[in-house]
Amino acid sequence: MKIDFWFSIGSTYSYLTVMRLGEVEKTSDVKFKWRPFNVRHVMIEQNNIPFKDKPIKSAYMWRDIERRAARFGLTPKLPAPYPLPGLALANQIAIVGVEDGWMEDYVRATYRRWFENGEAAGEEPNISASLKEIGCDPREVLAAAQTQRAVDELQTATDEAMNLGVFGSPTFAVGHELFWGDDRLDDAIHWTKDASS
Amino acid sequence: MKIDFWFSIGSTYSYLTVMRLGEVEKTSDVKFKWRPFNVRHVMIEQNNIPFKDKPIKSAYMWRDIERRAARFGLTPKLPAPYPLPGLALANQIAIVGVEDGWMEDYVRATYRRWFENGEAAGEEPNISASLKEIGCDPREVLAAAQTQRAVDELQTATDEAMNLGVFGSPTFAVGHELFWGDDRLDDAIHWTKDASS
Repeated sequence: MKIDFWFSIGSTYSYLTVMRLGEVEKTSDVKFKWRPFNVRHVMIEQNNIPFKDKPIKSAYMWRDIERRAARFGLTPKLPAPYPLPGLALANQIAIVGVEDGWMEDYVRATYRRWFENGEAAGEEPNISASLKEIGCDPREVLAAAQTQRAVDELQTATDEAMNLGVFGSPTFAVGHELFWGDDRLDDAIHWTKDASS
Repeated sequence: MKIDFWFSIGSTYSYLTVMRLGEVEKTSDVKFKWRPFNVRHVMIEQNNIPFKDKPIKSAYMWRDIERRAARFGLTPKLPAPYPLPGLALANQIAIVGVEDGWMEDYVRATYRRWFENGEAAGEEPNISASLKEIGCDPREVLAAAQTQRAVDELQTATDEAMNLGVFGSPTFAVGHELFWGDDRLDDAIHWTKDASS
């Protein structure tokens, strides 16, 4: 049983998913395929900007994440820097990591520094520290992440997400059935199990 | 243990809450105080219009409601008419029903007709049929619901909601702690039980 986990480094609620998905995988018999894409590109294209100039809704969002993080045993320092100027680069690095096999470790490391140390993902010192932590050479990875190839691969993934109907991060895809939001992870897992039983 | 259930007839996800809250109350030891308000007034004031001109996100919303409704044993015909031109009147009727003791029955009846028969709440034939179904005289209630007093009472409730930080429907309030969305009902109940233990 497999679920595609579409996400962008830059999404706030995706912190909750990124930090707990390894444990969920162990206890649920479901495998997750991590699929980085550029959610900002999708949201601008669809005129879907949920928090800009909405201070009351934004304040609620941080409080909601704080409460749910506590339930999952996480201890973020909130609010984290937001939005991320380096969103595209952060996800281009993830794209490079897919091929090299360290993508998930990098995503967890960069989210931890972003949400627990207050260092914005997609810029220094977060990038180099996260890459060193997982045993990568920051200079090499940064060079690869800024090639046209990495830019194109992130765009290809983003187009694939949009064609599927993804409009936000995180989204869990079970075939063509989409579940949007960290709070829909259980729904996606139930759907996967029902579909296969 | 008590939770304030802030809602507007006119909110789509509130259908799920309205139809299941009686059962939840029986099984959870928590009492809910139903608080109608005008969510449209709040959302316009806060420039928070989540579905307008967003066809992909709107299509997802209906599919998400359909799947979650099925889990709760509900069988809506979707999409239901949306948005509701008669939102304010629908909630003014609810306000009249608070004093007269039939508010919750009316809200359930009007939502059922809206979501299961395709009759928009806040207009005919939904209004009169819902009121007759619960034993009220539609002419009397409609007259009361269109008085300045009903208009003012709905505005007072809306101001109270906004002062509390409510920005959407449904919202569950446990003291000053807010939980937004039908999908946060469990979080609100857990919070109430933790707070009282």
